[in-house]
Amino acid sequence: MSTYVHGLKLQPDMIIGPDGDLWFGGCNLVALAERFGTPLYVINEEVIRRNCERYRQAASQYPHGFSIAYASKAFLCQAMCRIIADMGLELDVVSLGELYTALSSGFPAERIIFHGVNRKQEELEIAVEQGVGRIVVDNFFEIEKLARLASEKQQEVNLLIRIASGVHADTHEYVQTSITNSKFGFNIADLPQVFDLCQSQRLLKVKGFHSHTGSQILSLHPFTENLRVMLQLLAQWQEKYPELRELNIGGGLGSYYTFDDQELSIEAYVSGIIGAAEKATQELGIAMPRLTVEPGRSIINEAGLTLYRVGGTKVIPGVRKYVFVDGSMADNIRPALYGSHYEAALANRALEPATETVAVAGRCCESGDMIVWETNLPVTTSGDVLVVGRTGAYTYSMASNYNRLPRSAVVLVGAGRAELIVRAEAWEEVTRFDLIPEHLR
Amino acid sequence: MSTYVHGLKLQPDMIIGPDGDLWFGGCNLVALAERFGTPLYVINEEVIRRNCERYRQAASQYPHGFSIAYASKAFLCQAMCRIIADMGLELDVVSLGELYTALSSGFPAERIIFHGVNRKQEELEIAVEQGVGRIVVDNFFEIEKLARLASEKQQEVNLLIRIASGVHADTHEYVQTSITNSKFGFNIADLPQVFDLCQSQRLLKVKGFHSHTGSQILSLHPFTENLRVMLQLLAQWQEKYPELRELNIGGGLGSYYTFDDQELSIEAYVSGIIGAAEKATQELGIAMPRLTVEPGRSIINEAGLTLYRVGGTKVIPGVRKYVFVDGSMADNIRPALYGSHYEAALANRALEPATETVAVAGRCCESGDMIVWETNLPVTTSGDVLVVGRTGAYTYSMASNYNRLPRSAVVLVGAGRAELIVRAEAWEEVTRFDLIPEHLR
Repeated sequence: MSTYVHGLKLQPDMIIGPDGDLWFGGCNLVALAERFGTPLYVINEEVIRRNCERYRQAASQYPHGFSIAYASKAFLCQAMCRIIADMGLELDVVSLGELYTALSSGFPAERIIFHGVNRKQEELEIAVEQGVGRIVVDNFFEIEKLARLASEKQQEVNLLIRIASGVHADTHEYVQTSITNSKFGFNIADLPQVFDLCQSQRLLKVKGFHSHTGSQILSLHPFTENLRVMLQLLAQWQEKYPELRELNIGGGLGSYYTFDDQELSIEAYVSGIIGAAEKATQELGIAMPRLTVEPGRSIINEAGLTLYRVGGTKVIPGVRKYVFVDGSMADNIRPALYGSHYEAALANRALEPATETVAVAGRCCESGDMIVWETNLPVTTSGDVLVVGRTGAYTYSMASNYNRLPRSAVVLVGAGRAELIVRAEAWEEVTRFDLIPEHLR
Repeated sequence: MSTYVHGLKLQPDMIIGPDGDLWFGGCNLVALAERFGTPLYVINEEVIRRNCERYRQAASQYPHGFSIAYASKAFLCQAMCRIIADMGLELDVVSLGELYTALSSGFPAERIIFHGVNRKQEELEIAVEQGVGRIVVDNFFEIEKLARLASEKQQEVNLLIRIASGVHADTHEYVQTSITNSKFGFNIADLPQVFDLCQSQRLLKVKGFHSHTGSQILSLHPFTENLRVMLQLLAQWQEKYPELRELNIGGGLGSYYTFDDQELSIEAYVSGIIGAAEKATQELGIAMPRLTVEPGRSIINEAGLTLYRVGGTKVIPGVRKYVFVDGSMADNIRPALYGSHYEAALANRALEPATETVAVAGRCCESGDMIVWETNLPVTTSGDVLVVGRTGAYTYSMASNYNRLPRSAVVLVGAGRAELIVRAEAWEEVTRFDLIPEHLR
């Protein structure tokens, strides 16, 4: 069987069903569109679990502790927290909103890593009270706040110090000096002052370092370079503080979006990190540290897709044909925000050949609101169900009510089961927060 | 008095108060931040009313009917609808969400213009039922839907036909052929078929044409060129359909963001359009049509600002200093999405001179989450209230819950009064739509 349907490379657990429709997680996508309405985010539980398991299996080859922490910002809701908890992963959160989602769904606080550049007092307070596993600190201001909180509450706080390592994923080059231009992390030159500050408050326990290289990276080199730089740093500071035994190298493993993307598998990524860690620690003559990575996209992206209903079309001779769908940049801002590309297919006509190249246009009143600039499809008819593939990451999590469009539902599929994990917003709910002052009534 | 405070050119109705703080709409901004929390959108009712009035006054110079329709997508809530209604403007909406907001706040349906490229059946159905003043049609598919609806409901539907005029604002050039590459509007070559289709259904009443040139335009030429092309088209089609008497030339008048922007005043814009319309109609020998423009940004942008609370800072020697605030791309995505620039000041230290150039960084876990890349400020202290100026348009309306950050409140100020028109979302409300299926409990 071909691995493509129209412009879409089949996702894991996606098949052409016996009825000629596209199926995902044992569910007919055309039936899902009908049952739950469109636009609809569809998330495949089995694919999430499989990716989590692949990470865990690969990480188990490292005998000194290798944690996988799912990066919430890619996609989070309470059901997702339950799956991640169930798979034994840790959870990386970046706000009280994400932390609250995790805690309210029963996610164990000690398996949570809390990031941020400028958290509010109440966010750090709740994190300390709840005993969040690791708080990653990024600047002096937050260390000071945490020192006060630890003291007030007489509670130990476990910290990782975020470092701007200078390893740039985009260029595959790096600067070994402490200078980078990122808003994230301490420069290496800041570390004496950081440790002095942390040592001055006995309840602040620095466990190690954190350093994140970048996003949507599809080669091993930036990760292993970052690791090497961070291990050197760890070796250097272990001389003074032997209790530093953890290295969290962040996330960033990329995911397949279109045929341009040469994938780096989860296994190759994790074993590449393990190999580099073994080599570097040997060279440096230090013990192997506990490792953590924070994958988001590489777990959730290929587990997701979006269903739209096709409306009309518009042919501009010599330029392109637009296929209009009922979604927009309000449900997927990535094409407008990052110039991201996606693949697409018609779920209800999977057995028909693609016969033309079209652009899929969103419904927002904005020229940049395009969902797919170029994909191959059969000639569409109004009512067709369009699948935009691999939209699990950074779509729902970035969704807005732009044009006062209600946000779409998320349905969880797997083994033929389909259940809502995020309900759709109703049209009337767009005024939920609106208030009319007396003088305007 | 200087027109600048720090990096911010004073907005209309903004002053340095007797207490040395920045005031807007007769309200102390530091007090507003304290009372309503941050981030906080502040919208000045008097500035909105003044801009509406300027439009109306300028348009009144045109004796053949010149409507001003506020473009909802820039910023809408029920209170905003009340103000726009009160000022006698029309309202341009682009979804059932905007339409519902308007109708639920008592906005008269006959003063609503409904745009869209791919509206759902229920959206058009409600628009027809409610007797929306004008439905702008953009493609054949929607005309067919409206023909069926008009017939089913035995109700007249007043249409404007959206045209891709080929006038490009970005280059100040235009193509007089009917071909453009936009997803919006009919090509001129489509018009015979469009009129045939509309004539076949007696309840569809084509009133004229619509053509929108672009956004954030700060020179008159693209508007008058578009108008000229559209008047030629009107003249041509009036020969066959003398009932075509309206021209809606959309929105697009730009607004001041930073000192790079040479403003085109509302008065110069409107009188420029009137002058061009008079000249062209004379040349074409046709009667002056009814005109409509659809300003959004030029009414609301300078009426708004955003207040943030400063947290820490980070100095990267030789590169820049970051000032962290408690907002992000979740409350203003324009810097990340469009590379937009803003000006800023410290509301609580308005009398102090700016002494350094800094970048204002958002709190989201994303390098691109910068609010202002470069502005002049005094040396900040944690707790300072930072004003980002002229954020009325396309900020709240595009806000997301990215990083599960709750959305901010909008407060309406004017003549010393401050009242919530959109309440803040609570942290706990980020899980409002989440559902945990039975098998994950």
